This record gives sequence, C-alpha cells and structure tokens, in this order.
Amino acid sequence: MTRTRVGIVGLGRLGREYAINLHSRIERVELVAACSINPEELEFAESDLAIPVFSDLDIMLQKVEMDALFVISSTSMHAGQIIKGLQAGLHVFSEKPLAITVEECRKVEEIAKQHPDQIAVVGFVRRFDQSYQYAKRKIDQGAIGKPFLIRSQTVDKDTIADWQIKYVLQSGGIFHDFNVHDIDLARWFLASEIETVWSIGDAYKYPAFAEVGDADNVMSTCRLANGTMAVINAGRTATHGHDTFTEIVGTEGSILIGRPAQKHLVEIYDKHGSRREWIEVFWDRFSDAFLTMTKDFIECIQAGKKPELTLNDATQVTRVAIAFTESFQQGKLIHLD
Amino acid sequence: MTRTRVGIVGLGRLGREYAINLHSRIERVELVAACSINPEELEFAESDLAIPVFSDLDIMLQKVEMDALFVISSTSMHAGQIIKGLQAGLHVFSEKPLAITVEECRKVEEIAKQHPDQIAVVGFVRRFDQSYQYAKRKIDQGAIGKPFLIRSQTVDKDTIADWQIKYVLQSGGIFHDFNVHDIDLARWFLASEIETVWSIGDAYKYPAFAEVGDADNVMSTCRLANGTMAVINAGRTATHGHDTFTEIVGTEGSILIGRPAQKHLVEIYDKHGSRREWIEVFWDRFSDAFLTMTKDFIECIQAGKKPELTLNDATQVTRVAIAFTESFQQGKLIHLD
Amino acid sequence: MTRTRVGIVGLGRLGREYAINLHSRIERVELVAACSINPEELEFAESDLAIPVFSDLDIMLQKVEMDALFVISSTSMHAGQIIKGLQAGLHVFSEKPLAITVEECRKVEEIAKQHPDQIAVVGFVRRFDQSYQYAKRKIDQGAIGKPFLIRSQTVDKDTIADWQIKYVLQSGGIFHDFNVHDIDLARWFLASEIETVWSIGDAYKYPAFAEVGDADNVMSTCRLANGTMAVINAGRTATHGHDTFTEIVGTEGSILIGRPAQKHLVEIYDKHGSRREWIEVFWDRFSDAFLTMTKDFIECIQAGKKPELTLNDATQVTRVAIAFTESFQQGKLIHLD
Amino acid sequence: MTRTRVGIVGLGRLGREYAINLHSRIERVELVAACSINPEELEFAESDLAIPVFSDLDIMLQKVEMDALFVISSTSMHAGQIIKGLQAGLHVFSEKPLAITVEECRKVEEIAKQHPDQIAVVGFVRRFDQSYQYAKRKIDQGAIGKPFLIRSQTVDKDTIADWQIKYVLQSGGIFHDFNVHDIDLARWFLASEIETVWSIGDAYKYPAFAEVGDADNVMSTCRLANGTMAVINAGRTATHGHDTFTEIVGTEGSILIGRPAQKHLVEIYDKHGSRREWIEVFWDRFSDAFLTMTKDFIECIQAGKKPELTLNDATQVTRVAIAFTESFQQGKLIHLD
Repeated sequence: MTRTRVGIVGLGRLGREYAINLHSRIERVELVAACSINPEELEFAESDLAIPVFSDLDIMLQKVEMDALFVISSTSMHAGQIIKGLQAGLHVFSEKPLAITVEECRKVEEIAKQHPDQIAVVGFVRRFDQSYQYAKRKIDQGAIGKPFLIRSQTVDKDTIADWQIKYVLQSGGIFHDFNVHDIDLARWFLASEIETVWSIGDAYKYPAFAEVGDADNVMSTCRLANGTMAVINAGRTATHGHDTFTEIVGTEGSILIGRPAQKHLVEIYDKHGSRREWIEVFWDRFSDAFLTMTKDFIECIQAGKKPELTLNDATQVTRVAIAFTESFQQGKLIHLD
Repeated sequence: MTRTRVGIVGLGRLGREYAINLHSRIERVELVAACSINPEELEFAESDLAIPVFSDLDIMLQKVEMDALFVISSTSMHAGQIIKGLQAGLHVFSEKPLAITVEECRKVEEIAKQHPDQIAVVGFVRRFDQSYQYAKRKIDQGAIGKPFLIRSQTVDKDTIADWQIKYVLQSGGIFHDFNVHDIDLARWFLASEIETVWSIGDAYKYPAFAEVGDADNVMSTCRLANGTMAVINAGRTATHGHDTFTEIVGTEGSILIGRPAQKHLVEIYDKHGSRREWIEVFWDRFSDAFLTMTKDFIECIQAGKKPELTLNDATQVTRVAIAFTESFQQGKLIHLD
Repeated sequence: MTRTRVGIVGLGRLGREYAINLHSRIERVELVAACSINPEELEFAESDLAIPVFSDLDIMLQKVEMDALFVISSTSMHAGQIIKGLQAGLHVFSEKPLAITVEECRKVEEIAKQHPDQIAVVGFVRRFDQSYQYAKRKIDQGAIGKPFLIRSQTVDKDTIADWQIKYVLQSGGIFHDFNVHDIDLARWFLASEIETVWSIGDAYKYPAFAEVGDADNVMSTCRLANGTMAVINAGRTATHGHDTFTEIVGTEGSILIGRPAQKHLVEIYDKHGSRREWIEVFWDRFSDAFLTMTKDFIECIQAGKKPELTLNDATQVTRVAIAFTESFQQGKLIHLD
Repeated sequence: MTRTRVGIVGLGRLGREYAINLHSRIERVELVAACSINPEELEFAESDLAIPVFSDLDIMLQKVEMDALFVISSTSMHAGQIIKGLQAGLHVFSEKPLAITVEECRKVEEIAKQHPDQIAVVGFVRRFDQSYQYAKRKIDQGAIGKPFLIRSQTVDKDTIADWQIKYVLQSGGIFHDFNVHDIDLARWFLASEIETVWSIGDAYKYPAFAEVGDADNVMSTCRLANGTMAVINAGRTATHGHDTFTEIVGTEGSILIGRPAQKHLVEIYDKHGSRREWIEVFWDRFSDAFLTMTKDFIECIQAGKKPELTLNDATQVTRVAIAFTESFQQGKLIHLD
C-alpha cells in the first residue's frame, strides 16, 4: 500500500512531538520534509529525523512532493500556512486555534471550499482522548439522560507560567490558548452553539499577565442556543499539576473526565496523608490522544473519509473565544449572533 | 448552672430535628414550648417531647417564660416571627433565609438594633460543619495561598423534587431555597461582597418548575468586590444522591469539601465497578452541623458572646439571592450597589 | 421512666470517654460512681462529673447502689472485675479483651452462667460502627454473594508507639491489643470459627518491641472451619494516620470498609498532589461507635434483651489471639481444637 | 542501523499481541517467522503479518536466519523451546513461567550457561509497567523507608473462568499461572528470597476447579529470608473487573499500585452512586508494559547489555510457586531451602 507523504511546518515543543509521531509511530506515513524559522528546530529535523529542512514554507511546498501538510507553528501563522497548503493541493492538518480573528477563519473556510477534495481540519485533541471518547459513547447511549450542564477547565501547573508570559501576545491570550478545547467540548457534548457569554478573571498570582491585558485565571459562563449551560475555566497557577477536567451533567446522571490526573496508577501513604502525585504538563495527559488524532487524519486521507471535525467547528470555537475575550475586557455580557 | 429556656416555632421536617436536638442532645437547655399551625406537628411535640404547645405564637410568647426563640417555620414567616421574638425580649435563632425581600431584612435589622443585648442570628449551617471548618482553618493558615475562586453547589437527589414543587412559591424559588448557603460561603471564603452576577438555568427534567417561573437546575456566576470569582449551582435532579460540594481555589492550592458524600466509609466492588453509594438528603450530611450550630447559639447566650454570623450577613445573602433571581428572570447581568 | 444506674472502673484514655458518654450523651442513664487506682483519674471524676469516687472496687460495689458496671481498666484486670460485678448482681460491660488466657475466659463464662439474668458482654466496638453495620446489612442481603475472604487490619499512627511500648506487657502484646477486633470481624463476616493460623512479623521500626518479645508489625493468616480465609494485620508504624480497614471478598463482589479514613470530607490539592489528610487515632474513627455500643448495652438492660455478642464470642477471640501469639513465637502453624 | 531479526513460537491470545508488537510497534526489529501447531494461528501470521510460518520449531530454526526467538507458547513447552533457541545460537525471550518443575528450570539455566553471549530471559511484565517502575524509583529513593510488607494479588474477572478451566492442568494451576508475577514482585520490592510459605484456598464459586485439584481463590503468606512478609492472592471470580494490585508497606509510608484499575479517567455518577467502571482483562492494564518489556529485550540485544532479570530469577519464582502448590495441597507450612 502506498504511504502518505507529509510535510510539517513548526517544530517547537509540540511540533517536535508531531514530527516524531509521523516519523516513527504511524504506519504507512512518511515524513518527507520540515520547515521552521528556528535553526535549532531545523537541526533537530536533520539530525534526528534525517529529512530535508526548509526555512521557507513556499520553497518546501515547491520542492518536495507530498500529500499533506501539518501546521504546528505559532497561532498567528496558522491561517496563512493552511491556505498555502490548500493552494498547493495538499490535505492540511493544523494545530488549534484556526485563527484569533473571525475574518481569518472565514478566509480559510472560503479557500477550503475551493478545494473540496482536500481535507482541512483543526485538531481539537481532547475529542481523540480515550476517556473523552468513552464518556461520549456512554452519553450517546443515554447513560446520563439529556446533558444540560458542562463544567470544563484547562489549568496548567504554575511552573510553566514564566515560559507562557513570553507567548501571551502572539497566542491571542488565555481564552484562545487554553479554552478553545473546552469550547469545542461544550459544543460537542451539549450539541448546540454558545449564544451568550460572560467572562471574568484576573492575574491573581502573576501580575505580569495583567500588564499585557491577560490573566492567570479566568472563568466564562455560557448559555447555549438550546438552553443548556457551560462554565469554562482556565488557569496558569495550579501547584498540584496539570489539571484539565470536564464534567457533563445530565438529567439522569453525570460523568467526570480527567480527575485525578495522577502520575501512573500509584497512591502514596505518608505524612502528607494518602495522596496521588499529578502529571505536570498536558503532554503527559494527552500524548496518546495526539497520536490517535494524527492517525485519524491520515486514515481519513487514505480512506477518502471526511473527518468528524470541520473547519467550521474551528471557526465557531474562535468566535466564542473572541466573545470570551471581549466580555473579559469590557465587563459585560456578549451575545453571539 | 441555669438552663437556657427555649421555645420553638415550626415543627416541620427540619423543625422537628431542631426540637429533638434542643430537647435531648444539648446540655443546659430546656425546650419549654412549641408553636405550629399544623395539628400533627403539635401532637408530636405533646406526645414525644411532653411540652406545652400553641397554635398562636403571640400567646406562646405571653404565656411561657423563656430566654430564646427558634424560628424554624416556612420562609415567609421568618421575618415577622423573629421580630415578635425580639420584641418579647428573647434571643432569636432563625433558619435561613432571613427573608426574600430586602425590605423585610432591613426591618428585622432595625428592630434588632433596638434590642442590642439580644442575640439575633440566621443559621447558615455549613459554617458549622466540621469539614467546612477544617477547610477554613487550613485556608486561614495559608494552605492554599490567596483564595480567588469558589465553586459551590447545592444539589438534591431527584426523589425530593415532587415534594419540592409544592413549596417553590413560598420558599422564594431555587436561589433563595438552595443557594443562600453557597452565597454565604463565597462571602466567607473570599472575604468580600458579591458585586455582579449572571444566573441562567431551566427546568431540564421537571417542567413543573418552569411553569411556576422556577427551575430545576441553575448556575450563577459572580464577581466579587475584591476581584475574585464564584460560580454557584443548584439542582433538583441528581440521581446519585444529595451532592453538595464546595471547592476553593487559591494561588498555592485548592481544597474540595464534600465529595464524595458517600454513605459511610464503604466502597463496593461489583458488576457496576468500584463505587460509593451516596447519602440521600442534606440531613444525612449536615445533622452534626445542625447540632453544633444550635449549641453555638446557646453558648453565645450563656457566655454573653456575639455570634460570628450577624443579621447583616443574612441580609447580604438575601440581596444576592434576589440578584440571582432577577438575573435569571431578565437574562442580564445584575450589578449590586 | 427509671434510669439505669451505672458505675465505672478505669478512667484512663478510653475510660474517660466512656464516663463522659454515660454522664452526658445517653438518656435514661445515670453515672453514679467511678473507681480507679490513679489519683488523677479520680480527680477528673470528682471535678468534671461530680460523682463519688473510689480507689477500691469492692468498696464501691458495697457502698453504691447501681444496676451495671463498666470495666474499662487495663487488660489484666478485666476478668477479675467482671466477676466482681457479676457477683454483686450487676450487668457488666467490659472493654476488650476478656482476658489473655483461656482459663480466665472460661472462669468468667462459668460465673456468668450462674447469673443468667445479668448481661455480661465484651465490647467489640467495630460491630457498632455505622460503616461496618452498613456493610453487614449489604452482605446479609447478598450484595457480594458468599463471602470467602476477609482482609482486616488495625494499624496505628507511629506517633503513639512510644506510649504503647510502656503497656505492651500488661496488654498481652500486639495480637491481643490490636487484632481482637479483626478476629471478631472475621468470625462475624465469615460466619465460622478460625481453625488454623500462622503469624509472622517483627519490630521493623522500633526495636524496643522486639526486646520484650513483641513486634511493631504482624500478619496472621487464618483458615476457618468452613474453608474460608482471613488475613489479619496489625501495625504501630503508619505515618499517614490511624489506618484500620476491612475488606470482605465474596463470590459476587467485595466491600472495603474504612479507607480512606480521612479527616473530614476534605481533599487538598497542593504541591504534594491531591491528598486526604488522615485521622490520627482510633477515637477519631470510632467515637460514634463507642457511643452506639454503650447505648446498645443500656437498651438491652432496659428492654430485657440479650445482646448479639456473647461472652463466648470474647472467649473465642482470645483463643485465636493466643494462637496468633504462639504461632508468632514458635514459627509454626497452630491448629485450634 | 541493522535490524534485529526475530522469530516467534506460539500465537495464541498473548502470542498474537507479541507478534503485532514485534511486527509494527518497535523500530529496528523485523519479525521474520512464526511457528505454531494451530492452523488458525498460522493463518493469522501469513495473512496479517505476511511472514513465513512453520508448524515445527526445529524446521523454523533451521530454515530461517534470525537473531532471537520469542517463546509465547503454552507453559509446558517453554523450557524445551528456550533450550532449542539457545542451542540454535539465538537470544531467547520467554513468557512466564520458565517451567513448573525445578528440574526443568535448572536444565534451562545450565544450557544458558553454555551460551554466555546469548541473552535468555523470562518476562515478568509488571516490572516494566510504568506504575510499578514509578513505585520502585520512589522506594529506592527512600519514600517509604524500609519496606517490610507486600500485599499483591492477581485477580481476573469472572467472565474468563470458563475459558481458564480448560487450561488449568497444562498451566500448572493457579499459583504458577497467576502468582508468579506477585512472587517476582515480592522478591523485587523486599530484596530477599521467600523462605517459608503457607497457602490456602478453595473453589468457592466454580467447583470445576476443585475437581481438577485447583482453586478459584487462593492466598499465600510468605516469610522472607530478611524477616519481611508477603501475602499473595489469586482469584478467578471478581465481578468488577481485572483487579491486580500491589501494596508495599514500609517503615515511613506505603505505596499502593494498580487501584482503581478503572476504564479510562472517567467517574460516573448515577443511581449506583459514584463509580468507576473497571478494565476487563489484564491486557487492558498491561499492554504498554508488554511493549516496553519487548523493547527492553531488543535494546539489550542491540546494546550488548545484560537484562536486569535473569533466568535464575525465573527459577526462584518457580520454586516458590511449587512451594505454594505443595502447601495448598498438603495443608502445611513449606520451608524452602
């Protein structure tokens, strides 16, 4: 069987993991080229993956024959690079978010429409996590009746905050960077669009985030079109570890996903009581889901299937993240059209 | 030592428990009279407690010598009966809420000011629960740094909903009936007043609540004066049991109180997995706290101490519950003055 | 209704709690006298309980009219004092164990037979704990099928070890002092007598226990007459807190009682992970059960009922504790007749 | 870099998983041939793995050039096939147990000594599980002081019992089939050899096991040479799922590995309480560990390293499993030399 040839643009913390997955952990895929503006990243690709590297995406797309492009660059580059990939005739997978303005999202959607035979998708990785999938199946089977409330949070361990402050501006802020997953999950589990939102928060521990107009902890309450509710938190200050969880409450029960996010199946009994040490970063929690998501994209290409997630999902998510940000900045309810 | 003589008005589900506590479980207290408009309740007081009973509070206050009055009647009676007790020269303990209008709250406060040597207090029972007290001590000792977020909910098992629908109107609705505890806890743990609120919800399982303008599940988001955040839920539809919990998140850690509210210290392993059966009603969870709270009130009288809780706490809580209700009904942010 | 008049002998750590229960927490009981050889203990009884005190049990029994005697003295005194109480015409409740020799047990049983209208019982407190009772009801209802294995342990926090070393010899050692509860539970839950045992262990942390022929951690495996199995541990070295648990395994499920024995319903999330702080001493875990057990004894007297527990239960338990001790000392299997 | 060429003998339930791991999930390995006496298994290898298949191991070893042999056949075949592999000049990995007689174990050890440059190892998979490794590191760092007690069990869900009864005789019975892992862990964590054992048990749910001299639940207590203790259970009757756990107790704390073995990170709240559904079979729990173990063996070959586990470890484990079996059959303590 033929192998799908893929290129990747962006080899940062996460891009590197995608590259390794594509290079070694998925059958019938060949990682054929990598692009980055960072010399260290290119060096990694050359030495560890032994593939041709480029500092200019256009040149890579011209020179290397491939079937698909992975866009794992920084947020502000996503939309433009997806478009380049599509226009080069490639299937495109992009890390979240699609963009931080609706205009850019719409533009990508338009271009994608002009390339109906190419897959273009933004990866919301939690949908591919086994625990989330298991919960979704249970809920679809009626295990909790009709879901009407979702509580979902993305909270990082405080040790990463210093690193995050450097990327706040280009990432679009805490709502775009953290909560796009939770927004997508609210839409997925509650089967409706978010209509009205109120976001509050502050820099309670690290004033540096307030200085650039961002926050270290925020909370967004949402009313969806079908009358259901969501409350979505993000945080940068947890001391126990990465603490991403989602609770879906229905008329006949509820399901809590992701807690405790303990390091392995180990409970310790000592002078601190009985305790579970937690994972430190999201990768410890979701590395399997990233692999599953990447495989799913490749399978869609090879089987000629449409992915469940569409570009419009990504646009809707960005619209909500923008509404969160506006509500947070302006201190008022925001109604999405 | 002299015993404190107390009378009680209201012997419903909860009043009966107060009466038994006062009659048998607290030293140096004598329950000397009971008042109710319900013949069955009076029969209980006569036969089980062997005390004089009255169907008219004024007459009880005239005829029986006592030091304190317990007001455990229905919500709409609280304010008037507290005032009668105060004017009869008694210390007064009232079940929550103080009233469901600010006018009534203010009126009780005014009358209480005219009786500065009498204690008048509304019982927010969770402050007297061992778990909440333990958490408060920990937090006061700095265990979680500076608290900036509280998640708190009061959720009943669905089996009580049929009974509740009959009392919705006189109780002031789900925000007054369920969330006054959570409102009080938010103020207590975050050490500030609630300034802006948004409440949403619906009757997702029992349409009967919507028909009278109430809901079976609601969520209220709050911004406090000091910039901290609270999200407060109430529900009538849980299938696993009474599920009241509070999570306080701070800059250096967080504390979760009340989960799992399992029936005793028992875990079962069977075809449903590993599981903990839950308590069914709030009394199973808080009966000790009710006793502690009642003892504390008596001790304040006997020691001439002021209770930590003031009538104004109760007024503030009612103001917020009113704001929740208005926000829910009008679909907009409410700013408290 | 008439009150049951009770005297108590022994006012140490536990005796004091019994005295307070009898004095203040149970209706229709009057604590009328106390006996101790320790002047401090007598001072407590005089000042706090305002009852007549004696340093000689015989004199107390002669001088004070009473209906029942509570024997909460040190282990070596139990048998003799129970006999004195019985011979004085009293109902007698004794703390565990009945005695540490079978001869003494048998002698008490004989004397008790001569007083068939008096209740004589040794209190195995765990049978009166709500969690154990809940588990027993579940099991009797068939929730786990036929029970065939019990794992049960009594483990103290290490901070008590220094205090314990002083009482090792008079308490009969770790098997008599700790495991009589677990032995009783094995008999109760598995509905059979223990036939063959093997006990091992050592002083792994505190050599002082080995020096007097005892241990700080032991494990006893048992085969019961009906072919079922029990493994029973005792320990003095836990750093997380008092850790007493029992797991009953049946053909259709299992039930775990007592874990986690957390301090209140509180979970802490901090740099140690997510954790539950534990109770420190058995009293924190079983104080309610002690009260329930004492009430049950009083109710049996007042209602003319026979308690579920018999003196022979206590004798059987002592026989097994002796077998554990012999097996531990001799390093071999012990078969009880 | 050169690839290690491996053959496999045995393609049953577990052999198939090994084959897939070797075929697709490990770099620098080539699965070059498979041997089985079962036509269906061979068909799988031909169609799914596209490799040459053999029904005679001798012929496979003659015809196919390879570096290593994986022995995943039934227990009674292990020793003989390991020897064949060694004599053919191959490194050999075998599933547990090495054999069910000491004679066979010794014979394999002797042959292996004649081939000192070839690796021969029996895979005790739990040592390669992340949770066990994490616990081992913690313990090696002193997290629980000196370990003195291990509780370890291997318990299968009852749905597998019907299948198991067919293989009882050839597997050597429940001690060889289930507890070799726990025996190995006791030796690993307590750093000593098991000296004295007592095993009891019965067929409590499925009499068919008793009819062939086996049991459906057994418990073995062990005293080790350094005075520490182990209690090891096996069971075939759990209704909640596969329940394999290990608790290591030390002088300064303890560590519990493997509980709850929930299906994914999901907690369900419904009419059964709050609950976690469990995994069903050991593969759900240990599939990652099998892959890690297989990779480790390959890495040892490629790096010329000696594995941590030796054939003598496997011999010691078999000796203890034999002692368990004898103790169970004869009803007495067994002292190993």
